[in-house]
Amino acid sequence: MSADYSRRMTRHLADLAAPDVARLIGAESIIILPLGAIEQHGPHLPLSTDFVIADRAACAVAKQFGDDLDLWVLPTIPFTKSNEHAHIGATVWIGPDTFLATLDAVGRSVAQMGAKRLVLLNGHGGNSTLANVACRELRLNHGLLTFLVHPFVPPAYSSAPVSESDEHGMGIHGGHDETSVILHLAPDLVHMDRATSNVPNWLLENEHVRFGGTAQFGWLADDFGPDGHIGDPTQATAEAGKIMFDDAIALLGAQLAEISGFDFPSQ
Amino acid sequence: MSADYSRRMTRHLADLAAPDVARLIGAESIIILPLGAIEQHGPHLPLSTDFVIADRAACAVAKQFGDDLDLWVLPTIPFTKSNEHAHIGATVWIGPDTFLATLDAVGRSVAQMGAKRLVLLNGHGGNSTLANVACRELRLNHGLLTFLVHPFVPPAYSSAPVSESDEHGMGIHGGHDETSVILHLAPDLVHMDRATSNVPNWLLENEHVRFGGTAQFGWLADDFGPDGHIGDPTQATAEAGKIMFDDAIALLGAQLAEISGFDFPSQ
Amino acid sequence: MSADYSRRMTRHLADLAAPDVARLIGAESIIILPLGAIEQHGPHLPLSTDFVIADRAACAVAKQFGDDLDLWVLPTIPFTKSNEHAHIGATVWIGPDTFLATLDAVGRSVAQMGAKRLVLLNGHGGNSTLANVACRELRLNHGLLTFLVHPFVPPAYSSAPVSESDEHGMGIHGGHDETSVILHLAPDLVHMDRATSNVPNWLLENEHVRFGGTAQFGWLADDFGPDGHIGDPTQATAEAGKIMFDDAIALLGAQLAEISGFDFPSQ
Amino acid sequence: MSADYSRRMTRHLADLAAPDVARLIGAESIIILPLGAIEQHGPHLPLSTDFVIADRAACAVAKQFGDDLDLWVLPTIPFTKSNEHAHIGATVWIGPDTFLATLDAVGRSVAQMGAKRLVLLNGHGGNSTLANVACRELRLNHGLLTFLVHPFVPPAYSSAPVSESDEHGMGIHGGHDETSVILHLAPDLVHMDRATSNVPNWLLENEHVRFGGTAQFGWLADDFGPDGHIGDPTQATAEAGKIMFDDAIALLGAQLAEISGFDFPSQ
Amino acid sequence: MSADYSRRMTRHLADLAAPDVARLIGAESIIILPLGAIEQHGPHLPLSTDFVIADRAACAVAKQFGDDLDLWVLPTIPFTKSNEHAHIGATVWIGPDTFLATLDAVGRSVAQMGAKRLVLLNGHGGNSTLANVACRELRLNHGLLTFLVHPFVPPAYSSAPVSESDEHGMGIHGGHDETSVILHLAPDLVHMDRATSNVPNWLLENEHVRFGGTAQFGWLADDFGPDGHIGDPTQATAEAGKIMFDDAIALLGAQLAEISGFDFPSQ
Amino acid sequence: MSADYSRRMTRHLADLAAPDVARLIGAESIIILPLGAIEQHGPHLPLSTDFVIADRAACAVAKQFGDDLDLWVLPTIPFTKSNEHAHIGATVWIGPDTFLATLDAVGRSVAQMGAKRLVLLNGHGGNSTLANVACRELRLNHGLLTFLVHPFVPPAYSSAPVSESDEHGMGIHGGHDETSVILHLAPDLVHMDRATSNVPNWLLENEHVRFGGTAQFGWLADDFGPDGHIGDPTQATAEAGKIMFDDAIALLGAQLAEISGFDFPSQ
Repeated sequence: MSADYSRRMTRHLADLAAPDVARLIGAESIIILPLGAIEQHGPHLPLSTDFVIADRAACAVAKQFGDDLDLWVLPTIPFTKSNEHAHIGATVWIGPDTFLATLDAVGRSVAQMGAKRLVLLNGHGGNSTLANVACRELRLNHGLLTFLVHPFVPPAYSSAPVSESDEHGMGIHGGHDETSVILHLAPDLVHMDRATSNVPNWLLENEHVRFGGTAQFGWLADDFGPDGHIGDPTQATAEAGKIMFDDAIALLGAQLAEISGFDFPSQ
Repeated sequence: MSADYSRRMTRHLADLAAPDVARLIGAESIIILPLGAIEQHGPHLPLSTDFVIADRAACAVAKQFGDDLDLWVLPTIPFTKSNEHAHIGATVWIGPDTFLATLDAVGRSVAQMGAKRLVLLNGHGGNSTLANVACRELRLNHGLLTFLVHPFVPPAYSSAPVSESDEHGMGIHGGHDETSVILHLAPDLVHMDRATSNVPNWLLENEHVRFGGTAQFGWLADDFGPDGHIGDPTQATAEAGKIMFDDAIALLGAQLAEISGFDFPSQ
Repeated sequence: MSADYSRRMTRHLADLAAPDVARLIGAESIIILPLGAIEQHGPHLPLSTDFVIADRAACAVAKQFGDDLDLWVLPTIPFTKSNEHAHIGATVWIGPDTFLATLDAVGRSVAQMGAKRLVLLNGHGGNSTLANVACRELRLNHGLLTFLVHPFVPPAYSSAPVSESDEHGMGIHGGHDETSVILHLAPDLVHMDRATSNVPNWLLENEHVRFGGTAQFGWLADDFGPDGHIGDPTQATAEAGKIMFDDAIALLGAQLAEISGFDFPSQ
Repeated sequence: MSADYSRRMTRHLADLAAPDVARLIGAESIIILPLGAIEQHGPHLPLSTDFVIADRAACAVAKQFGDDLDLWVLPTIPFTKSNEHAHIGATVWIGPDTFLATLDAVGRSVAQMGAKRLVLLNGHGGNSTLANVACRELRLNHGLLTFLVHPFVPPAYSSAPVSESDEHGMGIHGGHDETSVILHLAPDLVHMDRATSNVPNWLLENEHVRFGGTAQFGWLADDFGPDGHIGDPTQATAEAGKIMFDDAIALLGAQLAEISGFDFPSQ
Repeated sequence: MSADYSRRMTRHLADLAAPDVARLIGAESIIILPLGAIEQHGPHLPLSTDFVIADRAACAVAKQFGDDLDLWVLPTIPFTKSNEHAHIGATVWIGPDTFLATLDAVGRSVAQMGAKRLVLLNGHGGNSTLANVACRELRLNHGLLTFLVHPFVPPAYSSAPVSESDEHGMGIHGGHDETSVILHLAPDLVHMDRATSNVPNWLLENEHVRFGGTAQFGWLADDFGPDGHIGDPTQATAEAGKIMFDDAIALLGAQLAEISGFDFPSQ
Repeated sequence: MSADYSRRMTRHLADLAAPDVARLIGAESIIILPLGAIEQHGPHLPLSTDFVIADRAACAVAKQFGDDLDLWVLPTIPFTKSNEHAHIGATVWIGPDTFLATLDAVGRSVAQMGAKRLVLLNGHGGNSTLANVACRELRLNHGLLTFLVHPFVPPAYSSAPVSESDEHGMGIHGGHDETSVILHLAPDLVHMDRATSNVPNWLLENEHVRFGGTAQFGWLADDFGPDGHIGDPTQATAEAGKIMFDDAIALLGAQLAEISGFDFPSQ
């Protein structure tokens, strides 16, 4: 994760010296905390997949919208709640209590800086529910306005051509989209020769107990076989990944523009 | 919360004696844990709103589908993660760590009974994300198959006439639907004379930062004013409530039917 | 544990709407928190035994003395510290830290409501010492006046005829008295045909290390054999149970009358 | 708390070298853990009162009965759960979680030594309920036989003349008995010239809510006035203290004799 | 902290796909976990100072010695125990329990990968004692061989000319050495125009209570004035920084070479 | 650990009555908390070794310097972080979290007494890093001035003749020095006939990974063989022990003299 510090962008909060924090960070500033993960992503993608996406998305957003929206990016947290991969030994995971305590500590610190708006930019789906919990805890404990966004777009905001992959909406971990984005962002880290389809089509028989169904269910990655990924990365391309990533940055920009002016009337 | 123990339904797990647990509970049994809440619900609804709905839904489901699906209902947990109401002094809330620890303890106990399937039937929206986290934790820690369902239905499963309330989908706490259901289940506890509309229409100006929008945000009940509810209960009726509740029971039955046969192929 | 919400008693705190809490709950109010348990009670009694007794006692007390003493009953906590039954797989138990955290959270919430007096009405003997600890913690942490009472009476307050059971004072779990009370409160849940005597008479040889002796000792239910109960339920009757329960309600009424006026002079 | 290590008694477990622990400690050994306290005891008694009593009682018991009963005394824990004195700034107290964790750690360690019997010899009344909880936790977590005893005797075992103090049984902290025992054990530490009576006689009006009454209540030391003690030490004498202490040692001897042979039949 | 993922070095563990972890990581591998910090470093240095140094040192070490010594670098943890700066609002800090829990989780994960050697490469002095504690905890809890190293060299290993700064060995935070290294690694982030000397010369009067003295003392950054740094950065140069950094890499290489063959005979 | 309370020194804080604490303890007072340990020390030394040294050193310091420096000694904590001996079953150890919580509780209590200076006098090397952490935590959490000292002297302060033992600086647990001191302080507890040398000479081959080397490493006592001690006690003598102990008391006196006047200018 070696950063290139000599040609650094200027919207990294940690690049500031302390007096600059006091001078530049205020109630209108938006602090972005990227949440990565170091976890197995099947045979074809690197452990750093979610880290790369969150980290690169935060940088891209800061570059495109940073000056207009007063964005400040914190370093990406590398180790998060990846315990759905606990049974597959190529993952670094922390439990929910430690993850929540870490987010609370960052929130406390951000509030102390004089900032009021904190955005969790989450690259790992397994973090989403607990990060959502954290949004409320940080608002309650530290008075922050808190937000949760992701570097992927729902179909309504996508301009990518429809994938030929037969994922039936179940390409949720190392599937077509994520693989495409990594092919775009870090092609050297992808082993397309190892890419295989691992789509749990048996779930389609269910109307309710399925991904996105009305009944949620607890699952671990190895519940879907030993490969570790869920989806069909075989048709992934860097071109599709570029479109998706660009779409995501555009959507993040639109979200952050709204966040910039957001506040509760009762405050 | 006084139960009528003399004419008890027979699908309450706690009504069994210990040898019956060993005899009747097995891998095919489905254990249902209703999650209530005791929290302010605006000026017109009782603190027990979520408790009543979860508790009654569990009983109704057990009555209608219990024998067919081998359902067993645990007592409803009354105090859960209601800290979005922490600033309004008519709420009993526990923090996320205690709630997660409680759910983990129940999961451990259920696994020890020889059961394999645990369903969280959650009546309080503020619990949903952490209950979702718990589904994974309990699967990982105790090997259970875990599920999360709610006693409300998405529009696609609703047969209720469209509400005349102007909630714009923001009737999320003490609004038209919840009020209607309580009017149906416990009419004596509703003060319709106090019902007022408290819809945060200003949120509609946002495309992303809104309920159900692409960007989630942390909020507390008092962020939307001092009344405590969010929505428009003024048009609520017991008739609509009955339809909604019946729809919910029907959907829960369908969900539980799928859960009954659900398992991972790799297990 | 399905409550009959349509004909609800009016002393259930959770039946109030939030403005009524602000209006009705004050320094003179007495908040009652019943502590149940879902735990094995031998072959003849339901898991819900302690829950039923605490829940029903709280309701009876509220009905008889509620208006005079300004009593308000919270929902019964179903899962408590039942880990003396951890080795017998028909028990739902939480550990001491989670139980204490839960009681602390309820105390914090009750204090925030403006109440000053909190009574733990404990139906499960295994909770007594930790509930006693909680009384001090809640007084220290939240400034409440706290009390611990039980729905059973010491001999001096009992009008029941002396049991013919040969329990030697050791009918502490599923024995004559508890079985009688459940025969009175929920006869359908009792399997008298399975009732056997399981009295650890070998303890009588001890002067000090015995129940109620000068030296306390740590024990688990399975230390006294595989059946799980301790005592002799074979002579239990509903009639005796009714006397005991009525005596308990009378004693609770007397205790609550004193609690009503209780305060420290230094306050 | 400087011990005289050159003329040490031989029943201090910590005086053993590691190979002697392996050689001498076994299933029949009884490990005694004295629990002290460093807390305010009114104007006349030292902070170390409970420490001195527990420590000296453990030594006396070991001396008189150690060889016969295979007793081994651990060092006295000085800081325990004295938070009833938290508002009076001359007390060193730890919270219930830390106290329980410490006892659990000692239990784990004792079990690892090959011992099976652990006796908590508790000199501080404020520890009793949580120490009782610990007895069960240590039995459950580490398989130990656990016991709780105190260096004071109930009236039935007392040979001391009835005190002329008018304490009505409420001399529970720095009162006649405790002061007498310290006058016997450490007379230089007592300021009898400061001894005053502080008996909460107003509690006598209560039948139930009183020390030893049917309803327990949470209290802090400053609830009974600013002096910090509860009782009447003015008539205390070293002579009475000697009788009480000797009685206590005799009772502890009898208790330990029973503990020596105690076990559950099912083990 | 944007990494340049397209021209990535190959010794980053997170760049591997899961099957490569199983293939490449073994008992002889050395896993390096860099510990950064985001904390105030006086008016002249960026918050990221410790992060940059740890991160860059890990990369340099991996580049120079990675193939020979089978080194694998994990992502740098950005937020660590920086609470000596808690009173200065430009720091993101986590408490000792969360930091220890995070390190334990990484250790557990690394052990599960099949690795046996974990090296903490710590860039923040405030982490050193607790990281040292963690070395033992991780050895005890997970059986790892654990090591703690720093990207700074003691004088005996330094080839840098003696600084003209008058720091008397007290340039411990944002002083001459650290500033020089950042001038070398990330010159754009240094504000030399703001550099002032803040050396607590009054400490020199002490023989024992001083940095590196025989008596250690607890201090917070603001104990030494409002500027936040401790030392004299005014004479810092990139040239000296280059020498120091190169020396540090050379020393780390020598340390890692020893670690590579290190094991306990009893294992 | 029986103390001789009848001829007690007057610098034991716990010997004071509460009003004396208010009268005598102030901002200039120095509170000393000795940290002992009960842990295996090889075949020749008692488990109490570290306890004896810390306890006796505290008493000696109080006696020699107490009146001049306003020293007040707390009771010695017997059970601390000895988990490097967890695999050797003659040790009572608590984990790092419980140890830190205990120290924090003592710090809170000491601050409440009106004291400002707290000195940890640590007799167990395994506590040093975490006690160092605690110094900062207690300063941050309770505003205390905190210090960490040890009852052993570095060579520069030693007047003892150079040991003939061939320990190469590795006599860190039950070696020449510690054995000599116990021969001086508690000769009856030493089994010199069992003393053997257990020096890990293989570590000398390392330049960096060794005791006191540039790279720290996690170790457990049994990593160096089954005996449990590390060092060569065979040449230990009471005479050398007396010199070492007296040197240590002299150094502690000098340290405490500096601590007495120590404060931060910014306070």
